[in-house]
Amino acid sequence: MNENYLKYVGIMRKIMDVNASIAVLSWDQEVYMPEKGADARAQQVATLSGIGHELFVSDELGKVLAELGNDTSLSFEERKNVEETLHDYLEKKKYTTEFVIKMSETVSLSFQAWSKAKDADDFAMFAPALKKLVALKREECELLGYVGHPYNAMLDEHERGATVAELDVLFEDVKKQLIPFIKQVAEQKQNPSEFLFRHFDSKKQWAYGIELLNQMNYDFKAGRQDISSHPFTISFAATDVRVTTRVNENDFREMIWSCIHEGGHALYEQGLNDANYGLPAGEAISLGIHESQSRLWENNIGRSLPYWKCNYARLQEVFPENFGTVSLDEFYKAINVVEPSFIRTAADELTYHFHVIIRYEIEKALIEGTIEVEDLPRLWKEKYKEYLNIDVPSDQKGVLQDIHWSHGSFGYFPTYSLGSFYAAQFFAKASENIPNLEALIEAGNLKPLLEWLRSNIHQDGRLYTAEEICIRVTGEKLNFRYFMDYAKKKFATIYGL
Amino acid sequence: MNENYLKYVGIMRKIMDVNASIAVLSWDQEVYMPEKGADARAQQVATLSGIGHELFVSDELGKVLAELGNDTSLSFEERKNVEETLHDYLEKKKYTTEFVIKMSETVSLSFQAWSKAKDADDFAMFAPALKKLVALKREECELLGYVGHPYNAMLDEHERGATVAELDVLFEDVKKQLIPFIKQVAEQKQNPSEFLFRHFDSKKQWAYGIELLNQMNYDFKAGRQDISSHPFTISFAATDVRVTTRVNENDFREMIWSCIHEGGHALYEQGLNDANYGLPAGEAISLGIHESQSRLWENNIGRSLPYWKCNYARLQEVFPENFGTVSLDEFYKAINVVEPSFIRTAADELTYHFHVIIRYEIEKALIEGTIEVEDLPRLWKEKYKEYLNIDVPSDQKGVLQDIHWSHGSFGYFPTYSLGSFYAAQFFAKASENIPNLEALIEAGNLKPLLEWLRSNIHQDGRLYTAEEICIRVTGEKLNFRYFMDYAKKKFATIYGL
Repeated sequence: MNENYLKYVGIMRKIMDVNASIAVLSWDQEVYMPEKGADARAQQVATLSGIGHELFVSDELGKVLAELGNDTSLSFEERKNVEETLHDYLEKKKYTTEFVIKMSETVSLSFQAWSKAKDADDFAMFAPALKKLVALKREECELLGYVGHPYNAMLDEHERGATVAELDVLFEDVKKQLIPFIKQVAEQKQNPSEFLFRHFDSKKQWAYGIELLNQMNYDFKAGRQDISSHPFTISFAATDVRVTTRVNENDFREMIWSCIHEGGHALYEQGLNDANYGLPAGEAISLGIHESQSRLWENNIGRSLPYWKCNYARLQEVFPENFGTVSLDEFYKAINVVEPSFIRTAADELTYHFHVIIRYEIEKALIEGTIEVEDLPRLWKEKYKEYLNIDVPSDQKGVLQDIHWSHGSFGYFPTYSLGSFYAAQFFAKASENIPNLEALIEAGNLKPLLEWLRSNIHQDGRLYTAEEICIRVTGEKLNFRYFMDYAKKKFATIYGL
Repeated sequence: MNENYLKYVGIMRKIMDVNASIAVLSWDQEVYMPEKGADARAQQVATLSGIGHELFVSDELGKVLAELGNDTSLSFEERKNVEETLHDYLEKKKYTTEFVIKMSETVSLSFQAWSKAKDADDFAMFAPALKKLVALKREECELLGYVGHPYNAMLDEHERGATVAELDVLFEDVKKQLIPFIKQVAEQKQNPSEFLFRHFDSKKQWAYGIELLNQMNYDFKAGRQDISSHPFTISFAATDVRVTTRVNENDFREMIWSCIHEGGHALYEQGLNDANYGLPAGEAISLGIHESQSRLWENNIGRSLPYWKCNYARLQEVFPENFGTVSLDEFYKAINVVEPSFIRTAADELTYHFHVIIRYEIEKALIEGTIEVEDLPRLWKEKYKEYLNIDVPSDQKGVLQDIHWSHGSFGYFPTYSLGSFYAAQFFAKASENIPNLEALIEAGNLKPLLEWLRSNIHQDGRLYTAEEICIRVTGEKLNFRYFMDYAKKKFATIYGL
């Protein structure tokens, strides 16, 4: 390795150490921090963020990147690392210090306003702060630059290369195919599921969730699970990737599928090459690809019949009072009920995507300025009526439900749907590549699938883009057909279509 | 406030944010980190330590301190902050980067060697690393500078102003008075205590420990307790001060008095003025004064008769199978058994100080070069025979028991005894100042004592030195007589002398 490259690696590892430290502070904040510690913690995170930012936009890094950019002796991986870092560097350099401070303050106020507004079920309490934030996000789009639609700048921050032009086509396709299919399902007799909402002891749920994570081959020596109010996955290094979950004693689904979902995210992070700590080759590709991993485990595995053929007897053993008289078939149908609902995070596999599309359409219009913040509650209700045929009863169960906008995260939601669609496409290919995958799952042997994901997706980090990895693994770009095929096959069987 | 002072405060807060972040990472490392995370964590801590050090020895801070040093407009508190910081700054500046790196590497190797040697019960495995470390510590003394004995440089790092000349006098006094008294006690019939070593359910112990912390007015909204292999207190801000403990199901004493001891440390940190975050006025005075707070709660309160008059009925309720037939008097005598033993952390209030004196004498001779590392096991055994009349059976139960030397902490141990002596002196004054203190303790009302400690000691941070605060509070310098009076009165009653 040449001296410049070693210098580059040294700077990147140092930045990663700072970012990992921020992650530890954030993790602690969500799971263990006592309430009075909040103000000091916010300041500590802000200071480290500033230090990390300064290190990243430093002339020292800029200089070494410029020199490495002309270095023809680099290996493929080295060159990719340098290119990706240069891309990130140039993006970060677009932000002036004043803008960063203003954004940080605005987000902080906006988050506080949202929390209060949500508790009070009153969008008007959030609107003024959100208005300022949207204005600033519009400014950010100009500052970042874009081709075509200004919202492309936001999308690119969350899913590199994603554009309005492509997403419009994709989501039109989703609507065209999913709406009639969901309608068809809705006309069928609904399967009973009330047994999922009886009382489930939280300690038993917890222990069972741990069993499922172990079965997925989540490495507890390189991670741990804790309780938080919103489940999340966080990585401090591939050797320390933590998940959180929450327990609802009256809804069996919440903890179990959040375990599996976050477990999927965590397997991706644990599967990154630790030797590339701090370098793009040691980082996840994009939010969409990240979500493909969590969704694949959550839905394609965790809500599948083979998975429960393997696990249901044990589940009955743990909760005999709830599942003793429920057959596997009844259980499987209950956990796959399709029904329009208000809350995105509790939605089924099919209606879920309309929650995303509604947010996408609103964000796009907000950023381009064809709607204003005041219009949101009304538009929200209209769209839920149009796409899901339900009447949203309140802002709390509507426009205020998600944290994202209050954090300034515009362009994030589409990655949730992209993740599901990538998951279906990857899973189809895995089923083709791994002999007897279904039988392996039925036997509780999930290792071959994990190894397939590791060697095809995880191990390369950001050496390939989302589109490139999709083509490398499946032979084609993202194609919604795979999701639709999967959904039709699965739910046609369940609903006897 | 003038502009320079505001600048100074800004820099100090930023440094504190970095140091607090290191503390969060260290806390996590001891209580929750999965094992594979260790290497990355060590690197993350090292990076933040480097950043913190650079910020502290920066010319920016040096310049503003120099200007403030000539500023006659500062208030008493502002001037003290600046003076204390200048002292710390000049100390830190004495270290060259090469020396810091070499020390960090040597400590790291030495700690690993010690861990293995302790497990294997073989001092020879630790000796070569310790030899290198001692050589480096001798070098550090020269680098720091000292008046009189070179070990004064080490003492000053842990207890500002402490010197060999003074400690020699103090410890001679301790020996002269404590040795005959312990001998007198040893000649009495020993009180039975075997009921402390039956089985105590760990969950019940935990819950009871939390009760005791609450009774002490430890603020759980500004802290929390967790389990670690060695109990400790750590602060991220006065609003987030955490304690840890450990549970031994076959030794009731371990968890209870570690809770009270760490609780005492934590009350000090929670009692610092949060408005002075990052400034000397918001920091603890010294290790000795810190230990005075933990010892006061652990011994003067936690091993006293009034305390257990208040708490024993509840304890019997929690552990009826162990204490149901044990009287308060029997319990009180059992928790105050005086008996020479091998392990410092498990020693009683009286013999404890010989554990400290032995280490002090060895450290002093090691640093001045009159003994060498090879001599340690032999000297250790000789001194335990001389002072405590016991035959140390192994290195594990002898010279290898403590982590301090492997960490390069020389000059630390004396602060443990100083803490006990300060505690006795402070407690004597508190008993004088607070009407009916004994009756308050018997009633479980520990708030007046805490308020006394807060207003007399905690709230001022480092505005006064250890000696100054001792004189301000008690009217005189540290005086061993208070400890001896306390000990004689207490143990003469217990042992019927």
